[in-house]
Amino acid sequence: MEELKIFAPATVANLSCGFDVLGCCLENVGDEMIIRKNELNTIRITKILGQELPMETEMNVAGVSAMALLQQLKSSQGFDIEITKNIKAGSGIGSSAASSAGVVFAINKLLDEPFTPHQLIPFAMEGERLASGNPHADNVAPALLGGFTLVKSYEPLEVLSLPSLPELRVVVLHPLIELKTKDSRAVIRQQVSLKSAISQWGNLGALVSALYEKDYDLFGRSLVDEIVEPVRSILIPFFHELKQIALEKGALGFGISGSGPSVYAMCRGEESAEKVKIGLQEFYQQKAIDFDLHLSKINTTGIKII
Amino acid sequence: MEELKIFAPATVANLSCGFDVLGCCLENVGDEMIIRKNELNTIRITKILGQELPMETEMNVAGVSAMALLQQLKSSQGFDIEITKNIKAGSGIGSSAASSAGVVFAINKLLDEPFTPHQLIPFAMEGERLASGNPHADNVAPALLGGFTLVKSYEPLEVLSLPSLPELRVVVLHPLIELKTKDSRAVIRQQVSLKSAISQWGNLGALVSALYEKDYDLFGRSLVDEIVEPVRSILIPFFHELKQIALEKGALGFGISGSGPSVYAMCRGEESAEKVKIGLQEFYQQKAIDFDLHLSKINTTGIKII
Repeated sequence: MEELKIFAPATVANLSCGFDVLGCCLENVGDEMIIRKNELNTIRITKILGQELPMETEMNVAGVSAMALLQQLKSSQGFDIEITKNIKAGSGIGSSAASSAGVVFAINKLLDEPFTPHQLIPFAMEGERLASGNPHADNVAPALLGGFTLVKSYEPLEVLSLPSLPELRVVVLHPLIELKTKDSRAVIRQQVSLKSAISQWGNLGALVSALYEKDYDLFGRSLVDEIVEPVRSILIPFFHELKQIALEKGALGFGISGSGPSVYAMCRGEESAEKVKIGLQEFYQQKAIDFDLHLSKINTTGIKII
Repeated sequence: MEELKIFAPATVANLSCGFDVLGCCLENVGDEMIIRKNELNTIRITKILGQELPMETEMNVAGVSAMALLQQLKSSQGFDIEITKNIKAGSGIGSSAASSAGVVFAINKLLDEPFTPHQLIPFAMEGERLASGNPHADNVAPALLGGFTLVKSYEPLEVLSLPSLPELRVVVLHPLIELKTKDSRAVIRQQVSLKSAISQWGNLGALVSALYEKDYDLFGRSLVDEIVEPVRSILIPFFHELKQIALEKGALGFGISGSGPSVYAMCRGEESAEKVKIGLQEFYQQKAIDFDLHLSKINTTGIKII
């Protein structure tokens, strides 16, 4: 195989109580990438459509992720990378993660899979390091593994796949304001109260149980964030109003996607998700705020060959 | 039914990553209680064997728990309570919780079960409030429900039952030093680093997953506590040496039981647990420290009628 075309999905990380550890993969929001072997012993970003992003390999998240993988293999195989970006950079639904995870997935396939999907995570994390200064796994893991993932620990890196809820739908609202991951991290306090931390891990434990028990209501009740949402929500226009609308329209839970500014609503079933989507849309239209809006199933397989 | 004799089990709370939220119930360590209807419209502690504890109803954890339940029912039925204490007060394996949970379980049965086991938890928490100043649920919940329990939240109170691991054995070593829950809480910092908190909830999420997946090794790897163990372990003689011995002898994980001074080792299978037990025993004998030592299965049903 000389060339692969893939769909590299968007992901929602953090998920309220799961700050820095939880993430899930979306079905119908994502980039397309073509990865092709070349004869040049070098990795080139040959085309980027849909967005202005660095073409220099060392400055591009897909470039550095590919380099990390090939260095580990001590391989001198070269690759050309074409990216059609549909996920806006800085939107909070894993734009850099999609490119980073996508490229290592494709190169691994083209080299006859020397690595398991789990083993690809650290390479894709190098892209995240370039994008935000922090090599986090909570977007690249669900992009590579699909479904819900939990970063148990970073040292050593251990990522678990959790069961998904089949009727779950995710509504993602992206206010078209720019918010850099770095800036969004800066508002977070590095010390938290033990009381809030205990609430957070009580809710996270309950959320994991809810996924196994297929308990949608418990899942929703667990989507609580006492630590990051109170400070980060200030950066998102009308966050509290949006949350109230989503919950009134029947969402199971609502919170910030990744480091924002996107917000997510988890809903049970398509019909419920449509109502929530319309409610959010009408509110932002009234307020004359530009936005993108997505409604997606949970993608349980991650990156797909197309 | 006029009278009930019950076994009120010991419990291990906190369990490392699950500070203030997790607990599990032991099989063969516990108190015996006899609860008997009386004609006096009053709750009396009529006998306490095995330990010096307050006989005044309002000063006794079983007394206040019973009062809380009967007040809720607006019942004037009186009860006599006899307690044979086998769990030492201040040992860190839920001595007060056994009495508090035991009495509400028995009174509920004698009144034809106006409450579900979950509904009994708040009454038993009143005993914990008397014992430690903190109405915590992480011992009374596993005593009442059996197995592993998770306190999802306190406001509102929501407690989940988690699956257990059938081959799990718990070794509990109780150094015979006194450590009041109040004092043991005093060493804990009320502010924690976000980084440690994230580690803690990553591990707790993984532990919940391990219980559902029946993954003993993951369960063991998740028994990590970066927040409370580093400070509280100072109060326990040779904590780090004990931990090293337990892990070298094959324990899955090791930590502080409740607020100490007891420590627990989780083991897979009876044989492994016996090795760990002997290792801990020999070490404390060499150091000439008095101790109690227990080896137990997980009790999946909680309080038992005997």
